[in-house]
Amino acid sequence: MMNKIEHIGIAVSNLEEAIKTYEQLLGTPCYKQEEVSSEGVKTAFFQVGESKIELLEATTETSPIASFIAKKGQGIHHIAFDVSDIESSMAELKDQGFQLLNEHPKSGADNKLVAFLHPKSSNGVLVELCQEKRD
Amino acid sequence: MMNKIEHIGIAVSNLEEAIKTYEQLLGTPCYKQEEVSSEGVKTAFFQVGESKIELLEATTETSPIASFIAKKGQGIHHIAFDVSDIESSMAELKDQGFQLLNEHPKSGADNKLVAFLHPKSSNGVLVELCQEKRD
Repeated sequence: MMNKIEHIGIAVSNLEEAIKTYEQLLGTPCYKQEEVSSEGVKTAFFQVGESKIELLEATTETSPIASFIAKKGQGIHHIAFDVSDIESSMAELKDQGFQLLNEHPKSGADNKLVAFLHPKSSNGVLVELCQEKRD
Repeated sequence: MMNKIEHIGIAVSNLEEAIKTYEQLLGTPCYKQEEVSSEGVKTAFFQVGESKIELLEATTETSPIASFIAKKGQGIHHIAFDVSDIESSMAELKDQGFQLLNEHPKSGADNKLVAFLHPKSSNGVLVELCQEKRD
C-alpha cells in the first residue's frame, strides 16, 4: 500500500543548469541539495504539493545515473512511493512475484530507507519504496 | 506555478495485464478506464495520495504511445502537473523560453484541459499541464 508519490527522480547531465530550468518550470526554488556518495549522485529537491521532484547528476562514471544517461539520455529515472513500513512492503511485493533489487532497505537521500524493484516487474518503470528513517 | 503532480503517465503494451500488475503494486484498485480516441489511447487510473497513476495503451499504430514504446519500450511517458489557469501557465512558460507542443489547450482524459511541453525544454522529460475543465 503506497501512501503517496514521495518523489520522481530525473536524471540530468548538469545539475546546476537543470536546477535553474526546474525552478522556472515548477515556479518554486530548490530547497535542498545533497550528495549521496554511496550511489555516486548529487541531488536537488523541489516540493510540488505533497511530492518532490529530485534531480540527479552522476558524480562517478559507474553511477547508475551515468549508465542511464549513456543508454537513454536525460529523463525520468524512477518513481518513489512513500510506504509506512518498508520491510513489510518489500515482503508483500516479493510474495506477489515482484523482483526486488535489494534484499534489505538501504540509506538513501533525504533521511530515507529505500529499496528498488526491477523495472521488468512493473512495465519498464523503476520503482523505489521509501520510508522515513525513525530515530 | 504547479499545484501538485496531477498524474504520471506510463506507456504499457497490454492495458488489462498492466492493470493487474499495478493493482498489486499500488495496493489500490483501478478506479476508472477511459478511451481518448483523439489521442489513440485507452487509459486506466489509480489514485495514490493526491496524485494518479495513468496507464496508457495505444489503440492505433500512429498513437504517440505506439511510437514511444517502439522507440524506448514500456515505461514512464510523462509527468502531468495540475495548474489553476492553463492559459496563463502556458504564456508564462513560453515567455521563459520553454517550447510548447500545443498552441492552445486541448481536451484530455479525466475532464481536463491539457497542453504539453517539448522534452528538450525540460531535460528529456515530457511535461503535461492539466487544468480541470470548468462548466
